[in-house]
Amino acid sequence: MTNQQTAKQQPIQLNGLNMEQLFQTLDAIKGDPSIADFEFRASNRWISGGENRSVIKEFYGAHCEDQSRTEAFVFSNGEPPVLLGNNEGANPVEFLLHALAGCVTTTTVLHAAARGIRIQELSTELDGQMDLQGLLALDDSAPIGYKQIRIRMSIKADCSDEELDELLAFTRDHSPVCNTVCKPVPVTVERVK
Amino acid sequence: MTNQQTAKQQPIQLNGLNMEQLFQTLDAIKGDPSIADFEFRASNRWISGGENRSVIKEFYGAHCEDQSRTEAFVFSNGEPPVLLGNNEGANPVEFLLHALAGCVTTTTVLHAAARGIRIQELSTELDGQMDLQGLLALDDSAPIGYKQIRIRMSIKADCSDEELDELLAFTRDHSPVCNTVCKPVPVTVERVK
Repeated sequence: MTNQQTAKQQPIQLNGLNMEQLFQTLDAIKGDPSIADFEFRASNRWISGGENRSVIKEFYGAHCEDQSRTEAFVFSNGEPPVLLGNNEGANPVEFLLHALAGCVTTTTVLHAAARGIRIQELSTELDGQMDLQGLLALDDSAPIGYKQIRIRMSIKADCSDEELDELLAFTRDHSPVCNTVCKPVPVTVERVK
Repeated sequence: MTNQQTAKQQPIQLNGLNMEQLFQTLDAIKGDPSIADFEFRASNRWISGGENRSVIKEFYGAHCEDQSRTEAFVFSNGEPPVLLGNNEGANPVEFLLHALAGCVTTTTVLHAAARGIRIQELSTELDGQMDLQGLLALDDSAPIGYKQIRIRMSIKADCSDEELDELLAFTRDHSPVCNTVCKPVPVTVERVK
């Protein structure tokens, strides 16, 4: 096998991302920004008490309905006994931390790749504080969602500490879940009759 | 077995919730609001590309570290091929919809129980729109998180339509995940050295 054949069969990867596809995607969006319009979806059904289950499969993006998933993802929400459940699953505010951790991680990995930074290790620890008096409507002055969320990231990469700090600040400003949390996003709840 | 014995062994349930425990919890918090201070946590580790994995187990609440979970919950984030992944899991912005669906559902079920409303069926469909130019830093004017999220709820319960509409408005105002999304919540990203 010649080197040329090897190069064709093994696209250049950085941080596990296909760099050719990444730059092609960026160029395609620059040519037609509407490619970047996405809609994500979930269906959920209540089971009992604090237990309910979501099904996630279809989404729209890059001008079409995605067809890549042959099976749906299924996730159960639950509550621990202290919150009237039986640990049927993690609870919704914990799933929000999982979403936030994943988005901050992927955003970091993506923008590191675009800058040519190779990441060796990346892990995060998240904690968020909440006063349940808000949920329970026991104190109108209590904030109802998380009061704050802290993300501590350990990262090893082939760049300077200054470049890492700049990358993390950029990540915080460009992570979709982080921005959905730290900026106000309108949510409508509509009853279907 | 006498009726009295049956009543002792089977606590009164409404919507799958132990009503005795619910009202005891409310009374306890009224007596000492610090019982309602909770901290939730997640740890996450990057695997490759858009794949990473969270572990969720411990949390703090009701004045102690929870000990109810013998095993951790583990969830994988992934990305579909159009977003440079291999569908290793749902993606973070989809997990956010799962968290939101679960929280709105549980908040509805809880406050319905507190009002004596019996729910027969409850399901939701969520969709959220996003312009990926924000994430990709291709257009500074593009919003970076969800532009908006719509929740459509189908609910059957033993009350009037007016009571249901009031309950849903109350849910939207008191769901912790809904409020984390629709109000600005500070998120810090700190590099651990």
